[in-house]
Amino acid sequence: MNATTVPARNLLAFCCACFENLRVPPRNAQLVAENLVFANLRGVDSHGVIRLKIYLERLRVGGFKPKAIPKVVRQGPSSALMDAQHGIGQVAATAAMKLAVAKARKTGAGFVSIRNSNHFGAAAFYATRAIPHGMIGFAATNAGPTMAPTGGREGRLGNNAMALAVPAGRYPPLVLDMATGAVAWGKIFVAQQEKRKIPTTWALDRHGVPTADPNAAAHQGLIQPFGGYKGYGLSLLIDILTGVLSGGGFSKHVKTLYQQIDAPADVAQTCGALRIASFLPLAKFRRRMEEIIHLMHSCPTAPGVDRILVPGEIEHATEKRRSTEGIPISGELRAELQQIGAQLRIRPPC
Amino acid sequence: MNATTVPARNLLAFCCACFENLRVPPRNAQLVAENLVFANLRGVDSHGVIRLKIYLERLRVGGFKPKAIPKVVRQGPSSALMDAQHGIGQVAATAAMKLAVAKARKTGAGFVSIRNSNHFGAAAFYATRAIPHGMIGFAATNAGPTMAPTGGREGRLGNNAMALAVPAGRYPPLVLDMATGAVAWGKIFVAQQEKRKIPTTWALDRHGVPTADPNAAAHQGLIQPFGGYKGYGLSLLIDILTGVLSGGGFSKHVKTLYQQIDAPADVAQTCGALRIASFLPLAKFRRRMEEIIHLMHSCPTAPGVDRILVPGEIEHATEKRRSTEGIPISGELRAELQQIGAQLRIRPPC
Repeated sequence: MNATTVPARNLLAFCCACFENLRVPPRNAQLVAENLVFANLRGVDSHGVIRLKIYLERLRVGGFKPKAIPKVVRQGPSSALMDAQHGIGQVAATAAMKLAVAKARKTGAGFVSIRNSNHFGAAAFYATRAIPHGMIGFAATNAGPTMAPTGGREGRLGNNAMALAVPAGRYPPLVLDMATGAVAWGKIFVAQQEKRKIPTTWALDRHGVPTADPNAAAHQGLIQPFGGYKGYGLSLLIDILTGVLSGGGFSKHVKTLYQQIDAPADVAQTCGALRIASFLPLAKFRRRMEEIIHLMHSCPTAPGVDRILVPGEIEHATEKRRSTEGIPISGELRAELQQIGAQLRIRPPC
Repeated sequence: MNATTVPARNLLAFCCACFENLRVPPRNAQLVAENLVFANLRGVDSHGVIRLKIYLERLRVGGFKPKAIPKVVRQGPSSALMDAQHGIGQVAATAAMKLAVAKARKTGAGFVSIRNSNHFGAAAFYATRAIPHGMIGFAATNAGPTMAPTGGREGRLGNNAMALAVPAGRYPPLVLDMATGAVAWGKIFVAQQEKRKIPTTWALDRHGVPTADPNAAAHQGLIQPFGGYKGYGLSLLIDILTGVLSGGGFSKHVKTLYQQIDAPADVAQTCGALRIASFLPLAKFRRRMEEIIHLMHSCPTAPGVDRILVPGEIEHATEKRRSTEGIPISGELRAELQQIGAQLRIRPPC
């Protein structure tokens, strides 16, 4: 089946209807759909509607509780602990970010840690929610174990991820959204299909040895942390700030999205906000952000480099383009969405 | 001159006397000396007494103001902005960390950003100060521009660094203290001396091209961020959280420790603390930390790997050893300390 391009609003409406069909309350269905389409719009297709199928399966068999209401277990002026009650990660993390922003508005900083959560999609979705409030946003998540600590050969850490988002005046918000793995599994699968070697910094074979062979990586191998032991350290620290601090799952207690889909995955997250005006007048901060971005952009380039980018710039440009041109959907994904539509008797978006 | 081993207390007393001689008030002299010796004890010799000479020179010619008193410019329940008044970085950052802890005790979180500061030594020194209070500590600093943004060929970012420290029950505190550069300049100089090639991920030549030649790196070249564009992103975000947020120097406005030593270097820092008991009872958190560390330690190892380490473990073991055996001082450094002693009429420690 051929690839196609679909307007964001059609994808949004379809995902939303699917979630509602699986007994997710309308507001939450809309929210999760927005999170998936947000990722597609920004070109982060790995976190987009490609996840719809597994989300729906988990909703159907109990891995995601469709009607769970996140509960605040404990809170202080700048902190809160939230229990997601095994609901959809997006619902809990959006509530957590809202609470972090409310606390930061009063005190300057707010941190909310979430336990008993699930996959929450693109971390930037939450971090960027701080921006309209004149705040720096932070969101981090742990994940099922797909990485070994440096020197190991068994999964003990997730491809844990974090995002930081900063208002940037006349520029689009600066958004760093990064996983701690050297690469996403998807890229290794592509190399397998195309029979290409992979850089030896990407993956380990099943003995824990760096490999250039994508098949060896895919056969019980592991992703390597990015940047060697520093990436391992960051991944571990994210696990501590999410799973350990929240009282939730950490290390190998967390399940990946595709493991035991009828059971809670015990994912944990932490959202944070820092109120800029508690440090500097917001207008001054914005001018300074414009200056630092200009200093990056204006840096003389290395041979063959067209221009220097700042984090989030590519995603912002993609979002602008895809908002008007639509979101490219592969033939395979199109077939998957059509199948979902047929099952749930919802008209597919393409 | 031969290498030697010196008891920490002798180095401490010597550094302290030198700082006092340059009109640093006794308490602050003691603090800065402790910070340098802390780094040596932990095996981070790049941030130890090797820096004494330049600190003293800067104190002598005005780059560090010996009697500056850090001033709180603005504060909220969980935030503060501090002006270091161009004093010694250690003095301001210690005051900032103390304030962050005091705020976190009341609200759950505290962040203090510092402008008009200077080189502050090892970041772990501040982050670990949160631990006795049952908190997670954070400290970050920017630095003079020695790295280009990804794709660039001119220094626009420092080898910006951060530390996170976490209480870990029966284990030593877990301490991640990392710079965002792929390598310290020192390692490139050693490769130059030993006429060895360097990995092409370490440095750029003066045209912005990755190089295996340490001489090309040293000749107007630059350090590369660790882990490619993710390291660049982290370095930029640290600059934003320190320099931009504090109203201080950022990007190329910051000077390195060795540039224009009679002028303020416009370094900026941010210290933070998160009160664990605001999320989980501290005893429970400690048990969970013990478990996650055990899960790392017990991970089956890759061929040739003796055991798995967690961040800060090597430094803690080194600290234990050097506390009893003393701190190794090279012949060159020994001569430098003797020369300093002769100039200031203070008896050298070796």
